[in-house]
Amino acid sequence: MSRVAVIGAGAVGCYYGARLAQAGHDVHFLMRRDYDAVAAQGLRIHSKDGDFTLPSPAIARTSAEIGPVDWVLCALKATAIEEAQALVAPCVDDHTRILAVMNGLGVEDRFAQWFGAARIFGGLAFTCINRGEPGEVHHIDYGSVILGHLEDDRAELAAAAELWRGATVEVTTSPSLLAARWQKLTWNIPFNGLAVTAGGITTDRILAQPGLRAAAEATIREVVAAGNADLAAHGGAARLDADALAASMIAMTDVMAVYRPSTMIDFVEGRPMEVAAIFEEPARRAAALGVTTPHMALLAALMRSLDDLRST
Amino acid sequence: MSRVAVIGAGAVGCYYGARLAQAGHDVHFLMRRDYDAVAAQGLRIHSKDGDFTLPSPAIARTSAEIGPVDWVLCALKATAIEEAQALVAPCVDDHTRILAVMNGLGVEDRFAQWFGAARIFGGLAFTCINRGEPGEVHHIDYGSVILGHLEDDRAELAAAAELWRGATVEVTTSPSLLAARWQKLTWNIPFNGLAVTAGGITTDRILAQPGLRAAAEATIREVVAAGNADLAAHGGAARLDADALAASMIAMTDVMAVYRPSTMIDFVEGRPMEVAAIFEEPARRAAALGVTTPHMALLAALMRSLDDLRST
Repeated sequence: MSRVAVIGAGAVGCYYGARLAQAGHDVHFLMRRDYDAVAAQGLRIHSKDGDFTLPSPAIARTSAEIGPVDWVLCALKATAIEEAQALVAPCVDDHTRILAVMNGLGVEDRFAQWFGAARIFGGLAFTCINRGEPGEVHHIDYGSVILGHLEDDRAELAAAAELWRGATVEVTTSPSLLAARWQKLTWNIPFNGLAVTAGGITTDRILAQPGLRAAAEATIREVVAAGNADLAAHGGAARLDADALAASMIAMTDVMAVYRPSTMIDFVEGRPMEVAAIFEEPARRAAALGVTTPHMALLAALMRSLDDLRST
Repeated sequence: MSRVAVIGAGAVGCYYGARLAQAGHDVHFLMRRDYDAVAAQGLRIHSKDGDFTLPSPAIARTSAEIGPVDWVLCALKATAIEEAQALVAPCVDDHTRILAVMNGLGVEDRFAQWFGAARIFGGLAFTCINRGEPGEVHHIDYGSVILGHLEDDRAELAAAAELWRGATVEVTTSPSLLAARWQKLTWNIPFNGLAVTAGGITTDRILAQPGLRAAAEATIREVVAAGNADLAAHGGAARLDADALAASMIAMTDVMAVYRPSTMIDFVEGRPMEVAAIFEEPARRAAALGVTTPHMALLAALMRSLDDLRST
């Protein structure tokens, strides 16, 4: 069993941390908002796969109280990336591995700058999880995680998969973290972006309006083109298939019906949006690689403006 | 002197109608909201070129009261185009000419379907005019008009220019109405569109953010490409210059500083936006002509969604 620190105990961190604790790991949660509630009544998970409670999980108000661990599970919002180094560092010693379950592109590279690439992993969560009252998390649907290693090291990837053995989470590993990140962006950029810029709408409305539906497909194809250029520039063999992804992402979203992308929820609730990681860094790489991505660029610019407006 | 009916007596209709009356024409205003105020105290124009009042202008509550005229000046919002035929028809006999001072593409074609192309003119107003209290109009800045004839007939164009002789309005004529319409769209599509979709911002903020500024320029170039294809399809000789328009439209807007495009004002005040005429019809023509216009298409789709949200 491993000693684990969950940094960023929002809905995603609490849920996956609770699953690791349920599987027997020694999990420590860095808590802010929920500290008192969890101290009083535990951490309660309402899940489509069955409710459960951690009656007295290990919680801390500072990372230093937790100290070095085997695994850091960092589930901060990408908007808080600048705080990540200071929050994670007290939990890191020579053998610590770091799994960033965060959105967007470039997050693992930042961790690599701070802690070295060999110990950095990315986790892509495909899930619908919301915070409820303090100390409560609602796991609505989905829940699978794709794991990748920043250097695509097979032995390290096996170690990451081992962490999740016995946890009630569907985990797969990807031989290319970068390909997995870009593939997820083929959904996040069009659907998070259009849901916000079209006025804060659900995905069914995107697909019901011919112009937005066409924009979604065109955006998917741009993300694939940018991703393949980025993958080629990084020397890997992995490539994304534009036709297959355009068809599958739209078909999957048709099935999801009335879905509120995370960035759209942030938008309508007035919270900071993950613009840099989901929109700007992919658009920046596309431009640097000479790939023409008008939809990606325009969505990034609009998202930046909409996000700036709420902070001024 | 001509007998003139102003249909659509909002700020633009009242202002230009008042200028024609000031020049001696027999101008009749179809009034709704402002009828009682104008009947009581006249039509008051606060203008950067000097205030003036029409103490007792001819006003009517129905077009039938006005009856046939030499010129119909139709200044309805493009969102009201479906009402235009019924409102204009009572003022039209065999010799009546119709000048549509409205935004966007395709407006004159609708009038031609109803009344025949030979009598249809378009007016492009470059102006900043707002309604004030009932019976009051504020002419803030600019004010020039470009006149075109739907069939680009020189003699007809001269007749239109003659109407404005002696009026305190800077009027020029364009040998190609379609080229003039597309040229105006090289400003309206990027700046009205981005001002709305970026959150209801002024033009200075568009130009201050590198991503939005680049999007504005790219959109201008798309509008030029679409416009030139449309002009070629209509057999005319006129063509737009992408480099010159990209440079001049952005330079002009830099000088305008803090400017609120009309569609952005509609957006923030919750009024219907001129989406069909300014965005959808140009994007539709571009697509039909096989011109690749991702910015135009995406802006049209986003504007449609944002406009639909306010009416539901």
